[in-house]
Amino acid sequence: MATRTASTQDDLRRLNRARLLRHLHEHGAARRSDLVAFSGLNRSTVGVLVSELAEAGLVSEAAGAPGQVGRPSLLVEPVADSAVVIAFDLRVDCTVVALVGLGGQEIWRREQPHPRPTFTPEAAVRNVVSLIKQALRRAPDDSSWVGVGVGVPGIVDHADGLVRLAPNLGWSDVPLGRLLREAVGARFGFVPHISVSNDADLGAIAEHVRGVGKSNRNLIFLSGEVGIGGGIIIDGRPMLGAGGFGGEVGHMVVNPRGTECRCGAFGCWETEIGSDALMRAAGINDEGASVADVLEAAASGDRKARAAIDEAGEWLGLGLANLVNLFNPEVIVLGGHLRLLLPLVSAAVYRQVHHALPASRDQVRVEVPALNGDSTLLGAAETAFEELLIDPIAVIADAPHASAS
Amino acid sequence: MATRTASTQDDLRRLNRARLLRHLHEHGAARRSDLVAFSGLNRSTVGVLVSELAEAGLVSEAAGAPGQVGRPSLLVEPVADSAVVIAFDLRVDCTVVALVGLGGQEIWRREQPHPRPTFTPEAAVRNVVSLIKQALRRAPDDSSWVGVGVGVPGIVDHADGLVRLAPNLGWSDVPLGRLLREAVGARFGFVPHISVSNDADLGAIAEHVRGVGKSNRNLIFLSGEVGIGGGIIIDGRPMLGAGGFGGEVGHMVVNPRGTECRCGAFGCWETEIGSDALMRAAGINDEGASVADVLEAAASGDRKARAAIDEAGEWLGLGLANLVNLFNPEVIVLGGHLRLLLPLVSAAVYRQVHHALPASRDQVRVEVPALNGDSTLLGAAETAFEELLIDPIAVIADAPHASAS
Repeated sequence: MATRTASTQDDLRRLNRARLLRHLHEHGAARRSDLVAFSGLNRSTVGVLVSELAEAGLVSEAAGAPGQVGRPSLLVEPVADSAVVIAFDLRVDCTVVALVGLGGQEIWRREQPHPRPTFTPEAAVRNVVSLIKQALRRAPDDSSWVGVGVGVPGIVDHADGLVRLAPNLGWSDVPLGRLLREAVGARFGFVPHISVSNDADLGAIAEHVRGVGKSNRNLIFLSGEVGIGGGIIIDGRPMLGAGGFGGEVGHMVVNPRGTECRCGAFGCWETEIGSDALMRAAGINDEGASVADVLEAAASGDRKARAAIDEAGEWLGLGLANLVNLFNPEVIVLGGHLRLLLPLVSAAVYRQVHHALPASRDQVRVEVPALNGDSTLLGAAETAFEELLIDPIAVIADAPHASAS
Repeated sequence: MATRTASTQDDLRRLNRARLLRHLHEHGAARRSDLVAFSGLNRSTVGVLVSELAEAGLVSEAAGAPGQVGRPSLLVEPVADSAVVIAFDLRVDCTVVALVGLGGQEIWRREQPHPRPTFTPEAAVRNVVSLIKQALRRAPDDSSWVGVGVGVPGIVDHADGLVRLAPNLGWSDVPLGRLLREAVGARFGFVPHISVSNDADLGAIAEHVRGVGKSNRNLIFLSGEVGIGGGIIIDGRPMLGAGGFGGEVGHMVVNPRGTECRCGAFGCWETEIGSDALMRAAGINDEGASVADVLEAAASGDRKARAAIDEAGEWLGLGLANLVNLFNPEVIVLGGHLRLLLPLVSAAVYRQVHHALPASRDQVRVEVPALNGDSTLLGAAETAFEELLIDPIAVIADAPHASAS
């Protein structure tokens, strides 16, 4: 149970510099006095570290807000144009890309539909390279390109970006991280930090850093699609498990007398509340139909659709109660179609979650994402910034100008 | 997502000293060269820190093992007699106490039965104080008394030792931490670090630090009693959740058409595999009967007992598969009566766990505890050492001699 910590004075200086930059990146502009309070460092150390970051162009200083008592404190700001990343959300039906600056500002965003059967790993890699090119053209002059983050609806080995299984893309054992590094290196003559992650894990990160769980240290994000993915933040850190495969909430068995799941078990949570399950129960199976059609049918008085929604609400609540008992989170965020479902089934969800043990139940909120449909995309941006936020000066010194790439 | 780290050079020195002592406490004697390799510190820094710890009496140095290539390295050992703690496992039918020295050595251990209905919080506190007195009498001369750790079969607010609910003791909202601090202070004129925790959380810590999960960073410990408790280690750290209530695996609903649980839900894991459930299903309800009687009956050909065991095996496996999918642990440790059950139901457990997603399933082992029935007790000792292992020199300087107390 060793604590992750600095060993030498050099480590310590680097870690403290990184802590300050991460704080500014996640929380925005701060007075020097806030940085002193946050970090526990003394005023002169903060001054030196901020100067080093300013010299590297990562932060700027301006006069503080007026009306402060005592000496005016300088306002330290992250410079959005100094370092940029490119974030991807590889969805079943489209690729979403964004160019994001330090501090989390979205500079440019685009959705590119792709027909599902032809979206092979090779096509995805070609797409990503071409969209990186387009994104870099929008990059501010003098910005450095420090990373790429990619979200995939599947089980991903976080260490090397191996996609073990992405059933709804039809992918298995795709070394996406390696393929991207090779293709990006060949095209741009430079390989930035490239991170590939599960989509729900990224949703959890984004909602924790910038969304509805900003002030919480324990959060669960659920991505509702055909499958139900889960991203879990424990004590402020993503829960990975032995191989980074934790959080597969979709295959928690809730109804052992239920339908057989493609995983081989019966009555997995996703066979009860996944989008396909919901549409099937509602008798809405047309090509191109979605959960929105089920909600619409129910709103116009379709009894079968309404019954399907009610049933899903019970199973949703039961599974949420399990998660409350297991993880004692402060907030559970319902993404994807679960976000649409929640307002219609809140009574059932409340009743079921009420069965969780009082100590944990009293501490939890069930919410919809604050970042709309972009939780995964913005989480991908966060992982793309990860290396910069570990060693800012070294990474910015090595990174190429974005516009020159 | 800030990283816990040192801010100043003083912090750094204290943290590094603490890291070395924790390493020796958890892993036993080590050569200086091992400490250099483990810590990332240079040789002279390790030398200085070890000398400081030796001066405080916490470690000793002796000539290293012969046969090493090159300069012989000194062997640094934790001194078991330097600092002691007193650990308690408050069970439903007895109190177990142990005196444990630095490095985890059990110096003295005793079980004291208590009749359940009269085991009130007040009786428990009186018991603990009297057993502390007995334990201190066995403490080595010159040893310092640095902590008390207590395990309780219930939901405990770790921060202040408030027992929110311990249904099988009949306790609710018992401020056990405060009561113990008051009683110990009044009796001994000194209040050491006193920590109160859930029994399964402590089992997880002990099996992680000294038991079957020694080399694993992700572990789940299940305490099988009337209820099913869970202790969860994520990336080497206990998972607490918002209020320290996480890991309530016993109230994960696995069979929504099952029996009503005392929590109000139906088909909780503990209504399917808890000891009372197992005995009821086997038709063995005599006063004083235990799960061992069910196993014995099955072994002598009792069909009802055998059927109850088989049924429990299926539910055990189903719940384990859920935990594998949710947490991706390297090892799940089955304590209490689950330990007895496992060998009889291993085929069902294997078959059910096989439904978990392959990526996670391939990484998990299901094991019985390495520390026999003492996982909780030894985990309580670990939490009792916690303050010493955060700031060794300051804590040892303040602690009274055990034998003088």
